[in-house]
Amino acid sequence: MKKLKRSARLVEMTEYLLTRPHQLIPLTTFADRYGAAKSSISEDLAIIKEVFEEDGMGELQTLAGAAGGVKFIPKIGRAQAEAFIDQLCGMLSEPDRILPGEYLYMSDLLGLPGLMNEAGKLFATVFGGREIDVVMTVETKGIPLAYAIGAQLNLPVVLVRRDHQVTEGSAVSINYVSGSHKSLHTMTLSRRALKEKSRVLIVDDFMKAGGTVQGMVDLLAEFNATVAGVGVLVESGAIDMEQRLLQEYVSLASLGAVDAKNKSVTVHPGNYFEWV
Amino acid sequence: MKKLKRSARLVEMTEYLLTRPHQLIPLTTFADRYGAAKSSISEDLAIIKEVFEEDGMGELQTLAGAAGGVKFIPKIGRAQAEAFIDQLCGMLSEPDRILPGEYLYMSDLLGLPGLMNEAGKLFATVFGGREIDVVMTVETKGIPLAYAIGAQLNLPVVLVRRDHQVTEGSAVSINYVSGSHKSLHTMTLSRRALKEKSRVLIVDDFMKAGGTVQGMVDLLAEFNATVAGVGVLVESGAIDMEQRLLQEYVSLASLGAVDAKNKSVTVHPGNYFEWV
Repeated sequence: MKKLKRSARLVEMTEYLLTRPHQLIPLTTFADRYGAAKSSISEDLAIIKEVFEEDGMGELQTLAGAAGGVKFIPKIGRAQAEAFIDQLCGMLSEPDRILPGEYLYMSDLLGLPGLMNEAGKLFATVFGGREIDVVMTVETKGIPLAYAIGAQLNLPVVLVRRDHQVTEGSAVSINYVSGSHKSLHTMTLSRRALKEKSRVLIVDDFMKAGGTVQGMVDLLAEFNATVAGVGVLVESGAIDMEQRLLQEYVSLASLGAVDAKNKSVTVHPGNYFEWV
Repeated sequence: MKKLKRSARLVEMTEYLLTRPHQLIPLTTFADRYGAAKSSISEDLAIIKEVFEEDGMGELQTLAGAAGGVKFIPKIGRAQAEAFIDQLCGMLSEPDRILPGEYLYMSDLLGLPGLMNEAGKLFATVFGGREIDVVMTVETKGIPLAYAIGAQLNLPVVLVRRDHQVTEGSAVSINYVSGSHKSLHTMTLSRRALKEKSRVLIVDDFMKAGGTVQGMVDLLAEFNATVAGVGVLVESGAIDMEQRLLQEYVSLASLGAVDAKNKSVTVHPGNYFEWV
């Protein structure tokens, strides 16, 4: 137990809450830690709550009663989300990202932990209220976003592999058709990785026709698991909605025409604001 | 500009600093934001600094002068690091992790963003003072740890692939020998991913003889880049140091004998404490 002034207590409690999103913390944890009355702790929490909510950083939910406590629900405000999506679209539309075959290089952006964590907050804002047990993605490029979302929602991440690895134990494999190329691929998930009847948030970096995501949906059926949501960083807007295998998803950006000849890329905001 | 009481300002400034590790923040950022005198801001920072340092959360470095400001350097205290490594060793030695071939299942642990972020703080404590430009790992299982470290050190993450992907542009490939199996593999890095002469922190989830890490070291030579450090979550202790291709690395845990017959796994702390 340590006696701290209110000012020091506020700094510590802020750190404690921010690093434990979506975890119920009994008031006694703080009261015991600081040898303070619960009423003082409640006053501290009221100050923190006001700052968090005014800044759009998230909510501080207070649950009354013996099993009660306080829970930090990270969110991002609308203005900040708009600024982030604008920034993302700006970066994605840099003309030197165009690769042969009109693919877009975005590994550098996926390699920025700060950018991914910020994107994670946007998805946490949409999905924070749903009942979800795990976040799932398929290797490789969706992994950073999946972890960023998992961290914000305090959920484990399950990784679907392209091959069956010796370090995964027994596994379930399925074949799926990549929607845009009509080519056949395999994906594999360790038996141990996912409990039966889990509610799963599917995440990927990019979605065109949605074949890969649909593959993950099919894989879930093998585990009697269900889809709790789908989130992608970038969707390809260059596809008819009818051709899209999947209609319900959240995207931050939508990639329009990639014109290799004139070196131009058009990127618009995704459907994120339809969900918040 | 918003006028806030000191208590609210402390909450906001704590959040601001924690989410911007290793970034120099000019005092004027805070002074302008709150319409407060720099002397008040300095007093706030002194309170935050004291709490951070007493709790072993990290340092708050103050740089004086016109180009000065404040920088949060995340660290973890020795007692907390010991508790974390004990917890990790305990989890790794659960007997039901043993797979055929005496491999150890650890994907569930790698799938916990909170655990990875905590591990990231340990590595940030060792490597925080070195000159590093990027964190590098090879797909797939080292990715979560690499991002956790990248986030703490405010560094981008570069991903080495097993195959050359169309979405990576032109790339450099090398062959390497996996030390423990003497089998030949390929790894590939996009030309765009790494600037010449970068100083690189190499990260992986597991190291046995060190062939994969040595492969990354060889790949760096192709980019005139240099190794700034090597960090692995788990090293295999079941190998002579002479057989090990690499002598300088930081590990959190060391995997001893895996006995499939008697269902026992021995795990000891790695060499972390030799480095801090």
